[in-house]
Amino acid sequence: MKRRQFLRSAGSAGVLTAGATIGQSALAAAPVVKWRLASSFPKSLDTIWGVAPLLAKRVFELTEGRFEIKTFAAGEIVPGLQVADAVQNKTVEVGHTASYYYVGKDSTFAFETVLPFGLSARQQNAWLYSGGGLELIRDFLKGYNIISFPGGNTGTQMGGWWRKEVNSLADLKGLKVRMPGFGGKIMAALGAVPQTIAAADIYPSLEKGTIDAAEWVGPYDDEKLGFHKVAKYYYYPGFWEPGPNLSFYVNLDAWNALPKLYQSAFEVAAVEANMAMTTAYDAKNPAAMARLLKAGAQLRLFPRELLDAAYVEAEKLYAQESKSNPKFRKIFESWNRFRNDEQNWFRIAETPLAGYIPRTK
Amino acid sequence: MKRRQFLRSAGSAGVLTAGATIGQSALAAAPVVKWRLASSFPKSLDTIWGVAPLLAKRVFELTEGRFEIKTFAAGEIVPGLQVADAVQNKTVEVGHTASYYYVGKDSTFAFETVLPFGLSARQQNAWLYSGGGLELIRDFLKGYNIISFPGGNTGTQMGGWWRKEVNSLADLKGLKVRMPGFGGKIMAALGAVPQTIAAADIYPSLEKGTIDAAEWVGPYDDEKLGFHKVAKYYYYPGFWEPGPNLSFYVNLDAWNALPKLYQSAFEVAAVEANMAMTTAYDAKNPAAMARLLKAGAQLRLFPRELLDAAYVEAEKLYAQESKSNPKFRKIFESWNRFRNDEQNWFRIAETPLAGYIPRTK
Repeated sequence: MKRRQFLRSAGSAGVLTAGATIGQSALAAAPVVKWRLASSFPKSLDTIWGVAPLLAKRVFELTEGRFEIKTFAAGEIVPGLQVADAVQNKTVEVGHTASYYYVGKDSTFAFETVLPFGLSARQQNAWLYSGGGLELIRDFLKGYNIISFPGGNTGTQMGGWWRKEVNSLADLKGLKVRMPGFGGKIMAALGAVPQTIAAADIYPSLEKGTIDAAEWVGPYDDEKLGFHKVAKYYYYPGFWEPGPNLSFYVNLDAWNALPKLYQSAFEVAAVEANMAMTTAYDAKNPAAMARLLKAGAQLRLFPRELLDAAYVEAEKLYAQESKSNPKFRKIFESWNRFRNDEQNWFRIAETPLAGYIPRTK
Repeated sequence: MKRRQFLRSAGSAGVLTAGATIGQSALAAAPVVKWRLASSFPKSLDTIWGVAPLLAKRVFELTEGRFEIKTFAAGEIVPGLQVADAVQNKTVEVGHTASYYYVGKDSTFAFETVLPFGLSARQQNAWLYSGGGLELIRDFLKGYNIISFPGGNTGTQMGGWWRKEVNSLADLKGLKVRMPGFGGKIMAALGAVPQTIAAADIYPSLEKGTIDAAEWVGPYDDEKLGFHKVAKYYYYPGFWEPGPNLSFYVNLDAWNALPKLYQSAFEVAAVEANMAMTTAYDAKNPAAMARLLKAGAQLRLFPRELLDAAYVEAEKLYAQESKSNPKFRKIFESWNRFRNDEQNWFRIAETPLAGYIPRTK
């Protein structure tokens, strides 16, 4: 901790009486800091929501309770989609959110979460932590007075629940598909009609046939919403979300005011939260998928021509955005180079072994 | 920190004089702990070696220098393959090693690193952190007075450097292949002759033709040893190492004597080190592979019949070990169930999207 930070915080922590009594906290001389965290997610999405309290618990432990982060679910302080604003305005010091919720402000927000046909969970971590990605993201987010930390990845998502089979690209025409963001734009280019529908309205809309399909996350989360009861075809892969990364957004002034020790605690706890979300999903998804299949869900692979057409539309989108938005272009250049390198490398040892199916199975 | 731990450590830390002076460390009342870490790896394997100093740095930061871990490369305190003994005997408090180096003591040591046709890096993390794996491993390691923390994963390794092409299973017969552990046992069952050769002797042995092939890690590490100059066929995938996990081994008495705060710092820093190794490899391997190909390396996929035969031999090995070693059987049952579930799940959304190659490429 720097001397100035220490002096600034010493008053509130009562430093002159603290620290030296046997049996007292080792950190008693450190300042008390209380933050509020607004999540974009409901507690029912327990795997995503859960890493916010996990982060808070670790930070609390590492500072012996002197740095306390109280966690609030979506809607408790601000609606889920207003978390970035709340952090920017310091309504809360920290948010747990998906960066791509804010592409309406600037399409550049997409990179920190995921882009169609982009990076897998492992590749996204590699880009962010070791490929220069996080520096670029943080540079962009300075304009919003935010610093970001990777905060969990779901892995490749499923392609959602469809009321009818999609056997060709032509079958997409006119279908009303609940799909936000770039995925929705690609669906529109392919002839479908993307719909924006809040989570709670998806089930009744699918049931009535007001919409024809809806994407959500993957087996563990989808099962809870019961979509398989009203749209039995479960498509894969969710090519628009190969490895979506969530983020801890921190107000930059609040961050800069933290003692160095607390910054270190937050930073390392965020890495743990990131790891924990993916391992939790990977451990929970297989059993959920087995239950869904038992309940009548029908697995279907998107037709190859649909994937190929979607890929072409995705590349067109990136070219357009790069042309119209210099911030998007700057990050796209790093991201796209990294993506090509990673995908070529993973096609060698990693994916062929993962895809190997023994004759005996 | 518990009162008893605090009292025990207070003497050496000079607690009565510490903590209360303005400008002094917030943690000045905490005990000073100095540990030594013995790595199984040389500093030249910088991606593997590097996470030990990274862990030490984070722990130092989180305790404001009160918990200091000095890191030593293989051979500086003990040879690389004696790290487990050194931790067990408390010659050092902590080691950074690969559990499967110790299968000579007990084949059960393999699970914490990797088994042929086993878990990928992501699946291994899922099993260890969220699938009950780490509890089983730690229960086993109690017999050695060790507690373990996952400490980095290389991702799927390459299948090594071969002087001649292997176009069929029959081509393997009689070949001298440098391959330790279960991989070597499988090679022997397939008709090859596994060799145990120290790292420094691999290059001259390949050059002279004393051996026909040698496996190491992947492009970034292999390049430094220059194997491509003497054995140009670079095979993949390294089916015996789909996702090898390295470990921080801690002496259990040293661990139990740590203040809770320091335990928390170590535990979370180890997660960060684990993440950091994989992201570093993923970021560095693509460029290394490009350089190797430019220098004349020839990529080759192992023949399907070789993979199939190796898979059958691997399953036979596991059945034999399960029969003769109850400790192996206990962990195998958890691991094998998890492996089947994970592989079935990853074959749905994750691997097909990772393996998708656009028409345009």
